[in-house]
Amino acid sequence: MVVGSVERIAPCSGRAVELDTGDELIVIDPMGQQVSDLTAFSLADTAEYLSSGRSIDYASKLWLSSGDLLYSNRSTPMFTILEDTCGRHDFTLTPCSKKMFEMLYGEEEGRPGCEGNLAAALAPYGIGIDRIPVAFNIFMHVAFDEAGVVSVLPPLSRAGDFVRLRAEMPMVVAMTACSAGQSNNFSYKPIDFRVERRSAAVA
Amino acid sequence: MVVGSVERIAPCSGRAVELDTGDELIVIDPMGQQVSDLTAFSLADTAEYLSSGRSIDYASKLWLSSGDLLYSNRSTPMFTILEDTCGRHDFTLTPCSKKMFEMLYGEEEGRPGCEGNLAAALAPYGIGIDRIPVAFNIFMHVAFDEAGVVSVLPPLSRAGDFVRLRAEMPMVVAMTACSAGQSNNFSYKPIDFRVERRSAAVA
Repeated sequence: MVVGSVERIAPCSGRAVELDTGDELIVIDPMGQQVSDLTAFSLADTAEYLSSGRSIDYASKLWLSSGDLLYSNRSTPMFTILEDTCGRHDFTLTPCSKKMFEMLYGEEEGRPGCEGNLAAALAPYGIGIDRIPVAFNIFMHVAFDEAGVVSVLPPLSRAGDFVRLRAEMPMVVAMTACSAGQSNNFSYKPIDFRVERRSAAVA
Repeated sequence: MVVGSVERIAPCSGRAVELDTGDELIVIDPMGQQVSDLTAFSLADTAEYLSSGRSIDYASKLWLSSGDLLYSNRSTPMFTILEDTCGRHDFTLTPCSKKMFEMLYGEEEGRPGCEGNLAAALAPYGIGIDRIPVAFNIFMHVAFDEAGVVSVLPPLSRAGDFVRLRAEMPMVVAMTACSAGQSNNFSYKPIDFRVERRSAAVA
């Protein structure tokens, strides 16, 4: 593997990187209690994307962790979770957005939220904001009680916790340092990531 | 209201109907223990579609019922649930599909599943199979334990149970009589529906 350097996603922003099959992406919470919304699209055809519903159905569990696969809408593996030092992530809620901030928080500043930040990062691939799906919300701590009532709790991640994902197809992956106060315990911290390339050719 | 007649969706098939703002769609389980996967797209711009993640986030609960709104990916209300005599539906899993039948059931017959049946019903609107999202799975009984493990249980619906939805925008809605054995307790029954038009002009 060709180990890349750690890159930082500034608070309330997003980034996209291309991965080849076998490349590994390590998403790190450098300070603890921060969330990274992650989504991905196949480079062969961006109509194929990371699907929450397929992934939950095939894993037969809501909270995915080490050893689990994340599937595309075409039921093809996109990622294998190789390591996960935190153990709790969400795959049920859409990324925070300008409209969501208005409706849930009464905000009027027009912050783009993770939805807007993912769309901006994916714009070079022709992927617009309407195509940002339910994301894999790394470190996001969502709980449901028996009646199905949602609680968004402070992330369980501590400083240095990470998730290591192996890409199972050539793809563009986009991720954020989350902009939603409730998701990150109102700390608005950065997120770090590192890519380990399977081959130097694409490093 | 202009009350339409009851129409039947044959077992393991799908249908699409157009609704105007204020029209009401009643989805009925005529025999009990059957599931109908429902999805919808705005007629003004089919890039706007029914979003599980937005709906769960704004309702702050996983199991939606009477009085709850179902939102689009653009955070706009698409439906109000006016009545619900069953009370338990799923909004986390993608529709059953040919690939899912192969992977989870070992089937080789190539049945299209709700995904293929929704896509066929929506083909006249230029909506292809890659755009079938997590559906509102009416009467589907999914449970998660504390560890997040998924159970797909027999529907709680009895013969005649129904959900009454009011359309909050002009849309095309597609629905199925579900093809997945596990979802309908291996009964593969039909689904009925009726449309009540707000105005005779569009009846």
